[in-house]
Amino acid sequence: MFKILKKSKKTNARLGKLKTSHGEIKTPFFMPIATKAAVKNISAAELSDLGAQIILANTYHLYLQPGEKIIKSHGGLHNFLNWQGPILTDSGGYQVFSLSKIRKIKPEGVEFQSHLDGSKHLLTPEKSIQIQQDLGVDIMMALDVCPSGQAEFKEVRRANEITFDWAKKCKKEWQKSSRNQLLFGIIQGGIFKNLREESLVQITSLDLPGYAIGGLAVGEPRDKMFDIIEYICPQLPEDKPRYLMGLGRPEEIVFAVKQGVDMFDCVIPTREARHGRLYQFCAQKEKGAINILGNLAYKTLTATNEKYKDDFEAINRDSGVKLLQEYTKAYLHHLFKINEGLGLRLATLNNLEFYLKLMEKIREGILNHKV
Amino acid sequence: MFKILKKSKKTNARLGKLKTSHGEIKTPFFMPIATKAAVKNISAAELSDLGAQIILANTYHLYLQPGEKIIKSHGGLHNFLNWQGPILTDSGGYQVFSLSKIRKIKPEGVEFQSHLDGSKHLLTPEKSIQIQQDLGVDIMMALDVCPSGQAEFKEVRRANEITFDWAKKCKKEWQKSSRNQLLFGIIQGGIFKNLREESLVQITSLDLPGYAIGGLAVGEPRDKMFDIIEYICPQLPEDKPRYLMGLGRPEEIVFAVKQGVDMFDCVIPTREARHGRLYQFCAQKEKGAINILGNLAYKTLTATNEKYKDDFEAINRDSGVKLLQEYTKAYLHHLFKINEGLGLRLATLNNLEFYLKLMEKIREGILNHKV
Repeated sequence: MFKILKKSKKTNARLGKLKTSHGEIKTPFFMPIATKAAVKNISAAELSDLGAQIILANTYHLYLQPGEKIIKSHGGLHNFLNWQGPILTDSGGYQVFSLSKIRKIKPEGVEFQSHLDGSKHLLTPEKSIQIQQDLGVDIMMALDVCPSGQAEFKEVRRANEITFDWAKKCKKEWQKSSRNQLLFGIIQGGIFKNLREESLVQITSLDLPGYAIGGLAVGEPRDKMFDIIEYICPQLPEDKPRYLMGLGRPEEIVFAVKQGVDMFDCVIPTREARHGRLYQFCAQKEKGAINILGNLAYKTLTATNEKYKDDFEAINRDSGVKLLQEYTKAYLHHLFKINEGLGLRLATLNNLEFYLKLMEKIREGILNHKV
Repeated sequence: MFKILKKSKKTNARLGKLKTSHGEIKTPFFMPIATKAAVKNISAAELSDLGAQIILANTYHLYLQPGEKIIKSHGGLHNFLNWQGPILTDSGGYQVFSLSKIRKIKPEGVEFQSHLDGSKHLLTPEKSIQIQQDLGVDIMMALDVCPSGQAEFKEVRRANEITFDWAKKCKKEWQKSSRNQLLFGIIQGGIFKNLREESLVQITSLDLPGYAIGGLAVGEPRDKMFDIIEYICPQLPEDKPRYLMGLGRPEEIVFAVKQGVDMFDCVIPTREARHGRLYQFCAQKEKGAINILGNLAYKTLTATNEKYKDDFEAINRDSGVKLLQEYTKAYLHHLFKINEGLGLRLATLNNLEFYLKLMEKIREGILNHKV
């Protein structure tokens, strides 16, 4: 299922491949976000042209809208959004805690009110797996409790307990079905090393196909986050894929790859695109350049900046996307000024291409022992 | 420049071709609207794939944003929005009267406050032509005064006077330049037949390359509108292209073609797309079908309608657009429910394809004497 092809001699980075029922994925990889079964502002065909290997959707959102039963009758999530590559869904735990204002954790699951219409729901570990089975995704995540980055020791310890209990229940529910889906467990523990270690021992004891580090980039100090990644990664089982949830900026991804992380997802490329911020590779000495890897650097371009109003250069002359080669920065600036959807699409294409190329460069780097 | 290839034996419909500096256009034709140099929610490449022959942009909007000088330095509007086919711009008269709350007609032009930032501007006939020259469009419209559909006789008569005066000034300004642009005059006159006739005599006396009927579909009763079209069309010069501004629903376009109109523009396909209303050809006996031409009928589909939530049929199986063949109505319904930009794009592609196909069917109909 997961195979390491090469290990870096310089860092803990690994090059590998992950087999799913919708194809094999080269690791380390990045998953564009299609929370509600749509990568905002672009089509699945465009995503495929960009070279995306796998996308991420969300159990909580799809359960509420349009409902997993509709997607199941549609032949599954792949058919619904017309994407034939692998799909991973988050379990919905994080969304219940971040979106639903009224929620109550009970031993059997989490009771919450829909952020859409206020209707009451109970999400149990079993239910979360059943939904993800109905969606027919390739990788399912176990239901977890994700405390905020400011949570105190006691709260995080309690979250660990429930997360472990639910993970066991998820595993049991998953094993009932013979479908070709992978189940990943999520390690919590906040910024407390001993709680991280506790959660790691608990979750990895379940011998699941893969493990995720959850509960990071949720409001904790940045140095603590790096600290935890550095601390926890070497302790994860070598032979299982490692997924760092919700991260991050390019330099954060590079950092985590060096610690041995294989999988990433993040809203940054798509969300920042909507604010007109474009990520582009550049020369290391260029103004505003952020160096990330050997001689690799990037900068961001803010389309709404007045200086682009008469910049007749291509949006991205190095892009493989024709639209980004053909349209100019001046036109992009204009599109953002008039709030035109095409602008969001161009920026999204630009940023996802950047993130996907970044992962490609990282994989090349590992191969050549430069990472 | 304009050539009639065939006249219907059944009606006053004409089949022809119009030569512009960016290519020849088959008439009758429909112009998708790119008011602010962008057809909302789709790219110029998609527009081209749909078979659009020509698009329409707006002098008023582009003068204010980004400014015609920026577009001129960009190599003209064609380069700016990356569309190499013909472009027609409206003169800005209509927009000054509909968008700017504070405006004053003076003999030399119209003084108005920008609807964007309140800045004061004077749009003269000369200035309107200069802007359109800077934009580098293929067909320019003369600056006119367009009274509302409720305007009284006196106001409309006064509008005629100024419109004629400005048209003469536009012609003079246009003749100064040797560029390969066509200038069309606009006939006003509201719902008053004698004023329509007056304006027609005045404007056509200028011997311009083409003539438009303006001031219709601006709030007058529908039967009056049809009445005026029917009355004025036969009086227009036979050998010049005839443009009916701002119309209309498919059945209105068919009606006007039969009166001898060659050119159309309308916000309906793009605007209704944004409300999730899709135009599709259908069998004549289908529920909700509107018959328009021989055995040609259409209906509209409202994507937000609950009945589509589990409709797993293609959005439009007869479409030449892959996205419309591949995505289902259930997915489109979902996209509109979650306010996703891809939904607007799919609906826009659907409606523009419909309008462009409608014109194709109309041209075939004239050829076969069915229109």
